Amino acid sequence: MGVVIPLEEKTKPEAKGGVERLVSLVSADMERVNQTILARTGSDVTMIPEVANHLISSGGKRLRPMLTLATAALCDYRGDGHIKLAAAVEFMHTATLLHDDVVDESDMRRGKLAARMLWGNEASVLVGDFLLGQAFKMMVEVGSLPALDILSTAATVIAEGEVMQLAAAKDTSTTEDAYLAVIRAKTAALFAAACEVGPVVANRPKADAAACRSYGANLGIAFQLIDDALDYGGQAATLGKNTGDDFREGKITLPVVLSFRRGTDGERDFWRRTLEKGEIADGDIETALGIMRKHRALEDTIERARHYGAMARDALEIFGQSPIKTALLETVDFCISRAH
Amino acid sequence: MGVVIPLEEKTKPEAKGGVERLVSLVSADMERVNQTILARTGSDVTMIPEVANHLISSGGKRLRPMLTLATAALCDYRGDGHIKLAAAVEFMHTATLLHDDVVDESDMRRGKLAARMLWGNEASVLVGDFLLGQAFKMMVEVGSLPALDILSTAATVIAEGEVMQLAAAKDTSTTEDAYLAVIRAKTAALFAAACEVGPVVANRPKADAAACRSYGANLGIAFQLIDDALDYGGQAATLGKNTGDDFREGKITLPVVLSFRRGTDGERDFWRRTLEKGEIADGDIETALGIMRKHRALEDTIERARHYGAMARDALEIFGQSPIKTALLETVDFCISRAH
Repeated sequence: MGVVIPLEEKTKPEAKGGVERLVSLVSADMERVNQTILARTGSDVTMIPEVANHLISSGGKRLRPMLTLATAALCDYRGDGHIKLAAAVEFMHTATLLHDDVVDESDMRRGKLAARMLWGNEASVLVGDFLLGQAFKMMVEVGSLPALDILSTAATVIAEGEVMQLAAAKDTSTTEDAYLAVIRAKTAALFAAACEVGPVVANRPKADAAACRSYGANLGIAFQLIDDALDYGGQAATLGKNTGDDFREGKITLPVVLSFRRGTDGERDFWRRTLEKGEIADGDIETALGIMRKHRALEDTIERARHYGAMARDALEIFGQSPIKTALLETVDFCISRAH
Repeated sequence: MGVVIPLEEKTKPEAKGGVERLVSLVSADMERVNQTILARTGSDVTMIPEVANHLISSGGKRLRPMLTLATAALCDYRGDGHIKLAAAVEFMHTATLLHDDVVDESDMRRGKLAARMLWGNEASVLVGDFLLGQAFKMMVEVGSLPALDILSTAATVIAEGEVMQLAAAKDTSTTEDAYLAVIRAKTAALFAAACEVGPVVANRPKADAAACRSYGANLGIAFQLIDDALDYGGQAATLGKNTGDDFREGKITLPVVLSFRRGTDGERDFWRRTLEKGEIADGDIETALGIMRKHRALEDTIERARHYGAMARDALEIFGQSPIKTALLETVDFCISRAH
């Protein structure tokens, strides 16, 4: 698999090799996507490019638009439509992040001050709406009604997932199934749609579209579960400067769901006090990590992610061997290996 | 014109006759739109229908979807697409209101507590996103790419208008032109799109679509200017329980723009203190009304609205006589007569 171990390990060591083949194979197309993104955040209303570029230029991996480019390539697509669809996918993601920050009252995003801290909630809401509108405009320009159907459905499902999360917020008795329903909607739906529009714009048969959709959905679940584990320091369960946010915000994620269900009465009282009531004292986060270690909650969250990763890989097996297929398979390993 | 003066005049007398012909001619279609709206706010996530219906059932006039139905009828459209397009237009409008309340930190909306006061900013942001997603899904189901283009463009323009308004907020030196640019984007763009998709879904020639678009855009400007005047009590310049909000929120609307430009240095200091600095003392709103009366700011705001109303009427003149055309012309008068 060629996973490159970085020479200098930081607080949160990441295997960086697994996604390099994907990055390299789509790099020419990705350059065009980036130009489109830049052009489409333009507006005479100066606050719009300011806010949009603050977030867009802050160094997300742009995994979702890369997946659209890659699945289009996997399906031998020869047109131009995948560029605007990929940009639209990234705009939908960025709009979601902007609105999420308002919903979560987050101060930080990707290690920078959240847009709402710099320009206010108003700008985050409205620039998110602008990007959502631009996303739909680009899809309309591509002119594929099936692609429009897939992405507009994803938009409603994502919003439903966010509301579901809101309704389940701070509920420590959330089941693993209920949690999965939330992340299927709020995270996996966009991964699935990003992957499905590749074969769809290439006019491939339904089975190919279903395979790519299934790859994306399961990759998305794995990606989110690994994010959940990373927020508690990943497999090592050691905290760095980018960890502990979920605990402090009272977010119920799979490591908590597993720890709560496997825990003693005293441990459940601890989760209720810290996450439901938000009464967090010094040392509580270390206690949380101790409970998670005791119940192997982080290892098992990563194990669950491996399960979805395996489903993602199998979904692609109907496609013949090609470098882009190899890259998509390696991307699954990359997403999971982040937690080691 | 048959404007019926209500027998019992309330605080804010409204001429109700002018829109009755429109309401009656589209009532059968509107019943189907209402059923679609109800069906499409449905979600297993219970908070979504709760929040959506709080606003949707709170008695807006549903003028925008009626305009889509009416322009489709004006163009002898025989299909079903106008129903979903009209519902999509209303969802776009409702999503804007939900997001506006968060942006403006409003406590009330249509005489009821704003959704954000009952369910929080989070729910207003996310249910707005859900409705926007549903709006696009319905448009995609209709399958008209030109209609999709018009409505997705409107979505970005509306968001741009809101951001523009944010940037110009509390700036008493705003020119009439700059103010018009804001309301063209934030209000008139949706009226224009709502009217344009009627002829477009009916496959009518460009000239018909342009006529309906122009009707809608100018009606929208007139509608907003009258709203601005009504917030200061309309032509009578007398305050009722639904007036004075713009002043208290520091909103710069045309009555203020005209008063500021025509005012003395002392009056300009008054506007700067109250609207820019937000230092509002007892009696200030009466002072504001006095200054507006002195400069005929409300009469002239209504006069400006009449100008756009006349443009709206002339835009429709290329269509032959029909009851629905008469209804659309009367709707212009209805919108303007609200201020008397």
